[in-house]
Formats: sequence, C-alpha cells, structure tokens
Amino acid sequence: MAQSDPYHELRQNVLAANLAVRDAGLAPLTWGNVSAADHKAGVCAIKPSGVPYDTLTVERIVVIDLSTGEVVAGNDRPSTDTPTHLALYRWNSGIGGVVHTHSPFATSFAQAQTPIPCLGTTHADHFAGEIPVTRHPSPEELETGYESATGEIICEHFRDRGIDPVRLPAVLLPNHGPFVWGKSADNAVSNAIALEAVAMMAATTLGLRPDAPPLPERLAETHFARKHGPNAYYGQKEAK
Amino acid sequence: MAQSDPYHELRQNVLAANLAVRDAGLAPLTWGNVSAADHKAGVCAIKPSGVPYDTLTVERIVVIDLSTGEVVAGNDRPSTDTPTHLALYRWNSGIGGVVHTHSPFATSFAQAQTPIPCLGTTHADHFAGEIPVTRHPSPEELETGYESATGEIICEHFRDRGIDPVRLPAVLLPNHGPFVWGKSADNAVSNAIALEAVAMMAATTLGLRPDAPPLPERLAETHFARKHGPNAYYGQKEAK
Amino acid sequence: MAQSDPYHELRQNVLAANLAVRDAGLAPLTWGNVSAADHKAGVCAIKPSGVPYDTLTVERIVVIDLSTGEVVAGNDRPSTDTPTHLALYRWNSGIGGVVHTHSPFATSFAQAQTPIPCLGTTHADHFAGEIPVTRHPSPEELETGYESATGEIICEHFRDRGIDPVRLPAVLLPNHGPFVWGKSADNAVSNAIALEAVAMMAATTLGLRPDAPPLPERLAETHFARKHGPNAYYGQKEAK
Amino acid sequence: MAQSDPYHELRQNVLAANLAVRDAGLAPLTWGNVSAADHKAGVCAIKPSGVPYDTLTVERIVVIDLSTGEVVAGNDRPSTDTPTHLALYRWNSGIGGVVHTHSPFATSFAQAQTPIPCLGTTHADHFAGEIPVTRHPSPEELETGYESATGEIICEHFRDRGIDPVRLPAVLLPNHGPFVWGKSADNAVSNAIALEAVAMMAATTLGLRPDAPPLPERLAETHFARKHGPNAYYGQKEAK
Repeated sequence: MAQSDPYHELRQNVLAANLAVRDAGLAPLTWGNVSAADHKAGVCAIKPSGVPYDTLTVERIVVIDLSTGEVVAGNDRPSTDTPTHLALYRWNSGIGGVVHTHSPFATSFAQAQTPIPCLGTTHADHFAGEIPVTRHPSPEELETGYESATGEIICEHFRDRGIDPVRLPAVLLPNHGPFVWGKSADNAVSNAIALEAVAMMAATTLGLRPDAPPLPERLAETHFARKHGPNAYYGQKEAK
Repeated sequence: MAQSDPYHELRQNVLAANLAVRDAGLAPLTWGNVSAADHKAGVCAIKPSGVPYDTLTVERIVVIDLSTGEVVAGNDRPSTDTPTHLALYRWNSGIGGVVHTHSPFATSFAQAQTPIPCLGTTHADHFAGEIPVTRHPSPEELETGYESATGEIICEHFRDRGIDPVRLPAVLLPNHGPFVWGKSADNAVSNAIALEAVAMMAATTLGLRPDAPPLPERLAETHFARKHGPNAYYGQKEAK
Repeated sequence: MAQSDPYHELRQNVLAANLAVRDAGLAPLTWGNVSAADHKAGVCAIKPSGVPYDTLTVERIVVIDLSTGEVVAGNDRPSTDTPTHLALYRWNSGIGGVVHTHSPFATSFAQAQTPIPCLGTTHADHFAGEIPVTRHPSPEELETGYESATGEIICEHFRDRGIDPVRLPAVLLPNHGPFVWGKSADNAVSNAIALEAVAMMAATTLGLRPDAPPLPERLAETHFARKHGPNAYYGQKEAK
Repeated sequence: MAQSDPYHELRQNVLAANLAVRDAGLAPLTWGNVSAADHKAGVCAIKPSGVPYDTLTVERIVVIDLSTGEVVAGNDRPSTDTPTHLALYRWNSGIGGVVHTHSPFATSFAQAQTPIPCLGTTHADHFAGEIPVTRHPSPEELETGYESATGEIICEHFRDRGIDPVRLPAVLLPNHGPFVWGKSADNAVSNAIALEAVAMMAATTLGLRPDAPPLPERLAETHFARKHGPNAYYGQKEAK
C-alpha cells in the first residue's frame, strides 16, 4: 500500500524531520511543525494539526498542492500554519523545507521584538546577517486570513530589504516565534537547531556585555564562505 | 479486583498525569500533585502525600468525596494540598483536573510576586490574560487551615476581578508556586507544561528588554479563538 | 565475602547516594562526594577520591573511624574532603549523611559570597532560614590542613550564630560550593537536590525583581512545621 | 585489518573522545572536533570534517603527519580546524589532546570578548588563572590561512604573556569559541567539560554580583596543587 504512495519518501522525510524537532527539544507539547516541498511534483507535505508527536505516522502526514493549497493525500487536517509554509515555497524554489517552532530563546527574541544580532561564527556559519523581526499583521490581514498574511509579511520583509532568503534562512514573528527554512526538511531542522543555539548564546552574551560588538564582517564572510561559498572546504566532497 | 473498583479509570488517569508531571521535569523530589474530578460521581482522585513517583501505583491514588472531603477509597493520606484542590472543584464544575507544582520559572514569578505578562502567542494559546498572583493568607487563615484558605483565596481573586477560570486556567501563590487546572487531568498537565514554558520565555524576554510590550489584544484573541473559540480550527475534528 | 562485611549496608547506602547525586546532575566529572555515618559503630563511609562514578563499587567505598580518622575498610584513598565530613559528624550526632557538590547555582551563590535568601516555601520546606556563607580559611589554616579547617569553619559559623544544623542543613563555602547534610545519606541527597533548585529559583527571582521580599515568617514556620514539626502532617504515617 | 593499523588505538581514543564531547552536550550538530597526538610517532588523529557523530567510525578518523600536515591514513577530509590543532601540538609536546567546541557559555564569553575570571575552586582545580581571549586575525592572516593563523595567534598570546599552556589549558577565540587541551584526548575532554561548567557559573555569579571578587590567590594555589602539584593528594595513587 505505502509502496504505491507516490509521496511516500516525501512524507517519510517530513515525519523524520518533525520527530527530529521534538527530539531536539525545540517543540514542547505540539508547538512545532515541519514541511518539505517537492517543487517538481508541485506539492508539499506537512504535519497534521495538533497531533501529538508520539502518534504521528507516515500516513498521517498531509500532502498539499503547492498552487491550489488543496489536500492531495491524507485524511487529517494539515497544520493551521500551512498557508504560511505555502507562501514561503511559492516565493522561492530554493526553499525545500520549512520549520516553525516556539523554541524558547528564539521566541524570547521574537517577544522582545529584537533581532538576533550576529555575535559569532556559530551564527555566521548558518545565517548571513542578523535574524530580522517582521511587522505585526494589520487588523484587516487578521480578518482575511492570519496564516497566509503571515507568509506574505515574511516575503515582503525580505524583498523590501533585498535580503536573500537562501543566505539568511530564518525570521522572527513579533510576539510569536521563529520560522526557519532550508534546502530540505533536514537542512531546515539543522538551521532551526542552530537558530535556538545562536539565540541562547546571544541572550547570554548580551547579559555579560550589553554592548557586545558584532562579528567583524570579514570573519563573517570567511565563515559563511568556507561552508557555503563556491570554494567551500567544510565537510566531505561527496556531501557537496 | 481492580476491575471491580468503580474509580479505577479515574485513578489510572491521575496516576498517569502525576507521572507526566514528573517526566516533564516540573516536580523534582515529591514537589507536585495532580488530581482529577468526576463531578457526576461526586469524587476526585489525588496523589498520596510525600510518596516518591517511582513507587506510585493505581491503588495508592486516594479517592475523596467532593462534598465532605472524606476519603472514599485508598489507604494512604491524600496530598496535604487536597483542600486546595477541593475548593477549586467546588467552585467550577468546568474544572476536571488540577495540578500543583514548584516548576522553577513559574515559581520564580510567584516568589517575585510578579504576574506573568502575556508576551506572546504561546501564552495566548493557553491563557486568556496575564497569570495573576493572589494575596497571602492572613494569620487567622493560617490558624484555621492553610490549604483550604489557599483554595478560597484563589476563587476570591478570580471572582472579585471577574476572571473566567476556564479561559485563564492558572494562578500564582505568592512565595509559593503555581496552581494550574483544565478540563481533565491530562489537559491540566498540558497547561502546567505550557505555563512553565511561558514563564521561562517571559523571564528571558524581560531580561532582553525590560519594557517588552504585551501581545496586541487582537492577536491574543485570534490565537485563543483558533484553539478554543466556537470556530476553532486547530487540531483534528474528532478531537474536538 | 561481602556478606561478612559488617559495613556492607552502610557502604551500599553511600554508593547509592553517590550515584543519586550524579544522576541528579549535581556533580559533573568527579565533583561530588557523599558519606554516611553510623554513630553507634563509630564509623562513616565515603566515596574514594577522584574515582569516576561509572567505576564505583561497594568495595571501593572507604570506611573511616569517626574518632581517629583512620581507614577501617577499603583499599582506596578516601575523598580529599574526608576531614570536612568528619568534622560535621563529630559536631552533631543528628547528622547521618553529608553531601558535597559543585552544583552550579548553589556554587554561583558561593562564588558571589551571597547567602541564598528564603524567598519561598520550597526553601522553607527544607531549610529554616537563609543558607549562610562562611568565612575563608586563613593562611595559617591552609598550612595546617585545608579540609579539616573547612569543617571547623562551618561548625564555628553555626555555633557563633546559634543556628541549629538539624533545622538548617546546608552551608556555602565562599568561592567554593555547598556542603549539605541530613539524617541519612539519602536525606542529605534530597536536601542537596532541594538546595540546587532553591538556588536556581532565587537567582531567577532576583533577576526578575532585585528587591524580592523574603517569605513572611509565619508562612515559613507553617511550611517547615507541616513537614518537620511535632504535628507534621506531610507524608505517610509509616514513613515518620 | 584494523589489527594491522598502527594508529588503531590512537584513532579509537579520538573516536571515543569525540563521542564524549557530543554526549556531554558541548557540540550540537557537528560543532566540535577532538584530536589526539602521538608525539613519538609524529602524528595526530582528528575527526573528519562535517561528519555527523552518529556515523563516525574508527576508520573515518583521519591521521595526519605532525610536521608536514599531510594525511597519513584515512579517506576523508580532516576537520577544517586541523591547522589550529597542528599549531598547538607543534608548540608544546606536553599537549596530547585538543578539543574545539562551540559550548554555549564558553562561547558567550568569547562573543562578549570577556575573559572568564577565576571565581572559584572549580575553576582553580583545572585552570591556573583566568581564561584569556586572543586578538582577531588580521585581514592578511585571513587571506593566507585562517585556521593556521588561529593556531599561531593562540601560541603568540600565551608566549607574549608568559602563560604556561600546561597549567592553563584553554583559550577563547573572540566571536568564535573555546579551544581546550590536555595531556591526552580524554584529559582535554574533561577540561572542556570543566570549562563549560566554569563559564556557566561565572555568568550566573556575575549576574548575582557584577563585582564578584576572584578566588583568593592562596586558595587557588592550594586547589591547583592538591590536584596537580608535586605533592598532589587528590585521586588514587595508581592513577598518578
């Protein structure tokens, strides 16, 4: 049965990525959801809404048409945040996975409406610049669809400021929490783990020294480039 | 034997909920107790006093008459906090489970005698407003019964301010710790986990920005409503 | 063989208590030691020095004569802190177990040379008053025996101020860390776990509100008495 | 096969030490690497670059010639930080193991560009003095080789100030994180665990009391000497 499911691998990746978020402690209760897109097939797969991680199965992962937003496979309601995920996939085909959590330190920066400054190489290894905070949705946007408005607000923020979402794969929603993305669901989960670690260290650093200086630009560039640049030399050749 | 116990299911729920509180790290040593009420049967079931979680069994869960406060089943002394639990059940029949812990961040707000402000959607998803701190018991109340006075003080606080305990299922006792409740023991445990997460993030947010603004009212309402309102669309239909 | 060891039970308790300290996360690497005294037999048993917890066995627990400080059983060197433990046992026969750790929050108060104030009932349930910080050893005391001087300094601090060590079973050594005790090794471990939780919550409370008021005396008394007073009603009768 | 590998034991030690760093929670994702040197054989062994801990095997540990920096055994690329490790081994033959992590509290001090002060005996037991922060690499050094420049900068810092790296086996790279070393890979891992604990307690201590005084020199000396001095009496004789 599962053998003949054309979305089996995509759903399996999404199941594994959701469990990885839970195992990393980023999502107490059911506060998190991960999706992955298959841009060629024109679909994404996402966690069902409000289902405890312990009872998640491949069959319960919901498959959605990227253009129409309709459910293509699965009997459960998809995550309420699905319209936000869809907006990100429609925006940039370089985005293959999206993670939403309420991970505590990143959420605290979102609640403080303070961008996470780039204070070190851990940050620069994953994110080319400070993690921005978007604006709030307007009353009108809340009326017409909170979750899709959220997606639009993220894209608007990056477009207006000329930020490349592939180089800076994370954002904070004010008074809410982070959205993180990546080339794949797995890569997006790594970025979500990195974001929480970076947020914890930024909070601790600012506690030790409120005027802590940012990482010098030349070092930020060296670190990002050795992992992601054209002459990257981090990791194994076959993995590039 | 256990089959013929009319309270077997209630006691099993209470046992599971107490272990869930322990597993969530909210109750080091024996600092926590969970009860559940069966309002139709006129009883509640609660953890025995001072018994380590590792040795808890269904049979040791104590069943209490909601009206008289007498032990109906069980050979152990009930939790010393039983009178507080009883006061909550007698107050509002919408309360089906009560949790008391000394979870560290919520307790720190209780010790600071500072309400936990609603700084984000994580908070608004569970609690419709800031988590209040009650007054201290008076010397006379300490004389006549500390634990039942505590229950009365909680009810008084909510009644005097017109707060609906079903929409705001948590309170802080000054210099002591939180009481949390819910529709069931299981739901009360989820709320207790949420409260501790919300308290940790509030402390961190206030550390980053002492004047962090509260969540705008319209967003708080949207988040509470999508989980708990008449047109709630979070979670699965069958689970509603 | 072990059957005929007259100290077998004492050593087993000490082994279990040392592992409990490790499991509670209070002693990274080998930074901790627990002993227990058998005042009737005139001995105490203690962890060997610098032995990783993973390789501890009953046979490696060292038995010491309380009067002479000589090793009575065991082939290993006892903990370097043994003279401090001995001083406590010789001081008060109500002390049946002693724990030394570098648990992080209690140690941070010791490093800040700041007593841990009694800010809540969690504290009052275990300790009748703030946790004091002793003076430093003098250069002469360092010359003649650092660890025995440490024990004398603790006793001196409590005697000079008329503090009852049975009601206040913990102390902080400045720039060092806590010593905690109790009726038994097991009870001392519970007190050490409570001390670390209380220290963490005090640090968090003071971060939220630097002038947080102490627990009112009448509440402190009620809480200590319901656990430890002549009419204690916490816990089960058989356990009293 | 493995039997005939002359570097089998060295590689096994390095594998175990890398896993110990992961298990201690010092290296989320792949943010850490441990090496060990065999100065007689003129080689060191190190983690391959960017390989997840779960898939590490003895065969994937890379062996490097200490003089030439060439790979002697192994099919993977060595850690990108290899030139830093090599600089430390070439500097001092008392260094038998090197650990690099982004452990959160030590990294926060590195990001704050603030040395970790010696505030207590936990610190003095492992490190004879405050943990220094080096300078940044210059633009020229970034051009000619970031990682080897990093190693030179560490050695330069210690040499210029007359600090003995055997007595003070750790350093912070500004906006980056710690490098820690020791007599062996295993000893370096213990020092890395100690450094993170010491950094966490220093941050907490400074939060409680910004002007916390350092450990008195005479106590620092006593503690370091009882573990590392000529008359050390900590630990077991056979282990010395």
